[in-house]
Amino acid sequence: MRNTLDYLFNPSSLAVIGASDKVGSLGRGLAENILSTYTGKIYFVNRRGGKILGLEAFRSVKEISDIIDLALIITPSHTVPEILDELREKETKVAVIYSGGFREAGREDLEREVIEKAKINRIRILGPNCVGFIDNWTPINATFVSRERQGIPRKGYVSLISQSGALGSLFLDLMSYRDIGLRRFISVGNASDIKISELIRYLVNDPDTRALGLYIESIAEGRELIESLRKFSSVKPIVILRGGRSSRGSKAALSHVAALSASPKLVDGVLRISGITQVYTIREFLASMEALEKLERLLSLEKIFAITNTGGMGVLVSDALDISGIELTDFLDNQLRELRSIVPPYMSIGNPIDLSGDAPTERFREVFKILIKYKPDLLIIINQPQTSAMDTENFVLFAEELRNYLKDLRILLLVSGGEYARNFASRLRKIGLPVAEDPHELVAMIRSLRKDIIRGVRVVDLVESRREMVNPIVLNTLLSGRNLLLEYESKEILSRQGLDIPKGFVARSLNELKDLFYEKKLVFPVVAKIVSPDITHKSSIGGVVLGIRNFEELKKAFINLYELARNRGIRFLGVLVEEMIRGSPEFFVGGYRHEVFGSVVSFGSGGVFVELLEDVAFRSYDADIAEIYSMISETMIFRLLSRIEKKEATLSSIIKTIGIVSRLLEDNPEIKEIDINPATLYQEKVYVLDARIILGNPLKSSSVY
Amino acid sequence: MRNTLDYLFNPSSLAVIGASDKVGSLGRGLAENILSTYTGKIYFVNRRGGKILGLEAFRSVKEISDIIDLALIITPSHTVPEILDELREKETKVAVIYSGGFREAGREDLEREVIEKAKINRIRILGPNCVGFIDNWTPINATFVSRERQGIPRKGYVSLISQSGALGSLFLDLMSYRDIGLRRFISVGNASDIKISELIRYLVNDPDTRALGLYIESIAEGRELIESLRKFSSVKPIVILRGGRSSRGSKAALSHVAALSASPKLVDGVLRISGITQVYTIREFLASMEALEKLERLLSLEKIFAITNTGGMGVLVSDALDISGIELTDFLDNQLRELRSIVPPYMSIGNPIDLSGDAPTERFREVFKILIKYKPDLLIIINQPQTSAMDTENFVLFAEELRNYLKDLRILLLVSGGEYARNFASRLRKIGLPVAEDPHELVAMIRSLRKDIIRGVRVVDLVESRREMVNPIVLNTLLSGRNLLLEYESKEILSRQGLDIPKGFVARSLNELKDLFYEKKLVFPVVAKIVSPDITHKSSIGGVVLGIRNFEELKKAFINLYELARNRGIRFLGVLVEEMIRGSPEFFVGGYRHEVFGSVVSFGSGGVFVELLEDVAFRSYDADIAEIYSMISETMIFRLLSRIEKKEATLSSIIKTIGIVSRLLEDNPEIKEIDINPATLYQEKVYVLDARIILGNPLKSSSVY
Repeated sequence: MRNTLDYLFNPSSLAVIGASDKVGSLGRGLAENILSTYTGKIYFVNRRGGKILGLEAFRSVKEISDIIDLALIITPSHTVPEILDELREKETKVAVIYSGGFREAGREDLEREVIEKAKINRIRILGPNCVGFIDNWTPINATFVSRERQGIPRKGYVSLISQSGALGSLFLDLMSYRDIGLRRFISVGNASDIKISELIRYLVNDPDTRALGLYIESIAEGRELIESLRKFSSVKPIVILRGGRSSRGSKAALSHVAALSASPKLVDGVLRISGITQVYTIREFLASMEALEKLERLLSLEKIFAITNTGGMGVLVSDALDISGIELTDFLDNQLRELRSIVPPYMSIGNPIDLSGDAPTERFREVFKILIKYKPDLLIIINQPQTSAMDTENFVLFAEELRNYLKDLRILLLVSGGEYARNFASRLRKIGLPVAEDPHELVAMIRSLRKDIIRGVRVVDLVESRREMVNPIVLNTLLSGRNLLLEYESKEILSRQGLDIPKGFVARSLNELKDLFYEKKLVFPVVAKIVSPDITHKSSIGGVVLGIRNFEELKKAFINLYELARNRGIRFLGVLVEEMIRGSPEFFVGGYRHEVFGSVVSFGSGGVFVELLEDVAFRSYDADIAEIYSMISETMIFRLLSRIEKKEATLSSIIKTIGIVSRLLEDNPEIKEIDINPATLYQEKVYVLDARIILGNPLKSSSVY
Repeated sequence: MRNTLDYLFNPSSLAVIGASDKVGSLGRGLAENILSTYTGKIYFVNRRGGKILGLEAFRSVKEISDIIDLALIITPSHTVPEILDELREKETKVAVIYSGGFREAGREDLEREVIEKAKINRIRILGPNCVGFIDNWTPINATFVSRERQGIPRKGYVSLISQSGALGSLFLDLMSYRDIGLRRFISVGNASDIKISELIRYLVNDPDTRALGLYIESIAEGRELIESLRKFSSVKPIVILRGGRSSRGSKAALSHVAALSASPKLVDGVLRISGITQVYTIREFLASMEALEKLERLLSLEKIFAITNTGGMGVLVSDALDISGIELTDFLDNQLRELRSIVPPYMSIGNPIDLSGDAPTERFREVFKILIKYKPDLLIIINQPQTSAMDTENFVLFAEELRNYLKDLRILLLVSGGEYARNFASRLRKIGLPVAEDPHELVAMIRSLRKDIIRGVRVVDLVESRREMVNPIVLNTLLSGRNLLLEYESKEILSRQGLDIPKGFVARSLNELKDLFYEKKLVFPVVAKIVSPDITHKSSIGGVVLGIRNFEELKKAFINLYELARNRGIRFLGVLVEEMIRGSPEFFVGGYRHEVFGSVVSFGSGGVFVELLEDVAFRSYDADIAEIYSMISETMIFRLLSRIEKKEATLSSIIKTIGIVSRLLEDNPEIKEIDINPATLYQEKVYVLDARIILGNPLKSSSVY
């Protein structure tokens, strides 16, 4: 059976409803694009009839006797519901609604009506408020973008999905300018029916989509999006450019496409999935797509050589690589000798090799011949063609030779400059070589070419389910009418799920304190903390006594904490006494159920530093070990951790702790939030020093109560 | 009297020595450029004689009977010394040596010889190993860059100094492409005589240089450079692009132009001078120069409005501005109402105002008319001309109207895209408007247009000289054969210069301990630290005892420290006893004499964090208060400080502490390094908890000993 989206990208017949003959109108632009690309059956519909671009137009879809697989609707928004009704008889499978004037203009009602009509009539909808789509292989250009004013990319292997129509068409223009081949382009607009995640899942199985570029501004379908991205990225590369990363940016995005946004750091984190490259500028976005359309990714990008005819550009490239953590490879002594033998003495042989400004193509070729013997993964060739020594025609021939190496060796060129350089770059691109226009584009290309390690074990799968042990505590809390677990309850849950907590007990009276103290045999020094459901920040009100060195001091602490409760008029449920763990450093592990992205986990500096230094990183709860490792390494506290002895053991303890938090969220839908702050390291083990678990509103979780 | 550099930029006569008729040779390129620009007397010299570009060539300078103000030498390096001798009789004032093959090729000897010859013959040298220079107002193009392959910018108001010749000519190419007007361009090459600082000082007084672009890779003339930059930036804007910021980058720079590099963070810091914009990419560099050539800076860039016909680009611009700390201005309610009345209902009115893709020029014009009434400092106009609604011819007319507003209102345009958009941008630039090609270029333009506050008081001037009180301690230390001051000596110096140190004393025996203890009346708890010239990190060997609560404990600590010294075989000079200051947070203040930049000061996190988190920032010792404030605010510890109560008082205490360090370095040439680590805050005062002062090698400081 055909997928509905097959009818979108490759219909047998289509109607352009709102097609127009009026020069400059969108209906005319769309009709022109369709006529000049699509070879199937085309019907133009315009309520005034007449001729459009030489074709007789129908006054209504009802006049068409044929089946219409795909309807392209570019009429005023209020006319759309009726058109959808009329299309029912034409067995229309998909409609693209270009028209604006829906949710983005405050008309949620009209958008809902359209979607209901579409459902009733079994028509899937792309849009509304979109620029349309392109399939260069069908071929079909179902956008209204003006081909006089902007380029449409040639047929190729990158697909592009854009949440912004206008930026989408800008990307097409720039792809064409850079000779990046396009498979499919989809502008999703308000995405009220066909969503980005559905399109991504569809493209996973499209052999001609070898890489995907995605521009998103606001994410309303978080969990589905993450899952579709995971699926796609496990087989093919994705580059994401995200708008609305700042607060004003997200406000601008909100007014643009009204959908939910979230903290930029959180979104950054959950989208950091192996196989996905996140970029931050339009140029990086285009450069990455250019590299991915022309080259296959490599698992190893370790041996990287660079040659340049411009020393200064070599310096700027070295800087840009270095800042991105990409290292050029040092030459071995015998390699240096060999290189030395063929280049002028004033040429400096580092990496980059500076061939100097008087280098003709022949010098590039000679050095290249030597370098390929050293089997690099990646070769960077910087050629500023402006120097009078550069015989550009010969270099073009050399570039054609280079193309033959692309299967085994990734080659990236860098050419900067005005008209002459741009024309030169354009010729190199036509030959099939990716050309960066500046050092930062080059870095983006390399980043996107680096194939991440294969999907590893999900951290949540490192930990076995113990719901049956955890659930009673959750249940008890809910039955007592509380959402917030007390510290010792939270710790008990974490302990049952496999985490280490300090040895201790809760005493409700002085007698109990004495009994439990002798029974549990705690080692001094200990710490005493008030137990009360009315306090969330114990230490700020003096509810924590540290460094207790004998039983007398402990008794005194108990009494003081009791007095504290009385003076403040808060409930006193006892005192939590625990051995003091003198670990270092302190850090934070958290997890919560985000309304858009589902469960996410976080890691950062402990105590107040997580907030003060904003030292926190996020991932989706189903991240794999490599992704969690990268989350940890994004933080500042990681620098302290990486100085610790037995670093590997330590880090795997922390990763397991994050797995435990993931597991608790996965298994226990009642748990809304887990804060372990601080945790610390003691003898390579993670100890929970303080913890807080919050449950979802029990009134809402009807399945349990 | 004329400055020698006047003869460089505006000579009455010149000789091209090494001029050539051979197509593709550098000598021909230079001769062509001179002939086509320079209207003074020109002599071509080539040892084979003959005709060059129609002019009879001399076989040697000796054959020329005239005075030669300026000699352009483009002959093999070994011939240069003799040519300089021959030029003596021609009263040559300046020579440009284009030839390579000197220091950069391992021939320091030849470079020294050239400089000696030049001195003897009273000829100033630009180069060697350079691309030459341009003065578009003389006019003269004394470079060998090929005008077929790259553009030369039109006459204008930005001067450009480049340490890299090839990048310099790339910048010229891009300036021409972007229609940025050039006043003077200078490629300094190895800069063995005429240095960047001298050129900058010269350009301070050049009325036609309204802004300066500077590309530097490695800085051999640190202090002079800083001082020239300070001088220039106090009257005119400077944009700096720096290569070699990373370790490999600086290696690449080193092999390129052999000169001394320094830690990137330090160089970043000392170049952060009010009035200077540091940029990190070629595009930001060009965009900044474009803005500065066309617009004057403004002291206030507070009220910023943006309008766009592309929602998505508005989002990306908002993101880029936000990340750079630049805020768009919220509209007032009455403004919103007024705007609402003239735009279509589906258009969203935020800032940026989204005119939407169907906006013709007229909508831009109407909104503009309203916006200028609100007296913005800066207006951003984003126009993607690809939409079919955009009547570009009308927009060009509108742009001509906009030009008339530039005196009072800074207007920046953003146009992205392929051929059509580039041509459109090019037309707007020709009209005189600065056009960014992407959001990051836009941000760079705004940053460079923002005029910093006027130069404030130097922090070193906040503190009066007390050399007469400090010097005896320094002298004593040097006389005892030490370079490293003991902790208590270092603290004593800091105290005499005005810093607060904990109350304390040094006891050399148990008796003395007792006597001093009763005499000084310290308040417990106290801390005891070993005094020994043989230890630099006391705490790591157990040489520090904290939290001493009574005299018994103090005595025990004294004995333990004595034993420690004996066991380790290190000299025991006593024990430093001090009251414990329980301040927070701990931070680091430092100062040292850098071999290139002279005295620098630094600030960062205290204890081990300064290293672990690399949380440190630098400035030149003569920075003003605003610059020191910005240094402090670059650090992570600043976030902790800014949460503290009485933040203003606290920060001015810290600024004064930095002033004290500056003052000590300024007054006492014997002091090489000052480390206050940690210092802390207690009752808004800065206390020095530990300090170390290192003196310069006394054998070298001959003036004192």
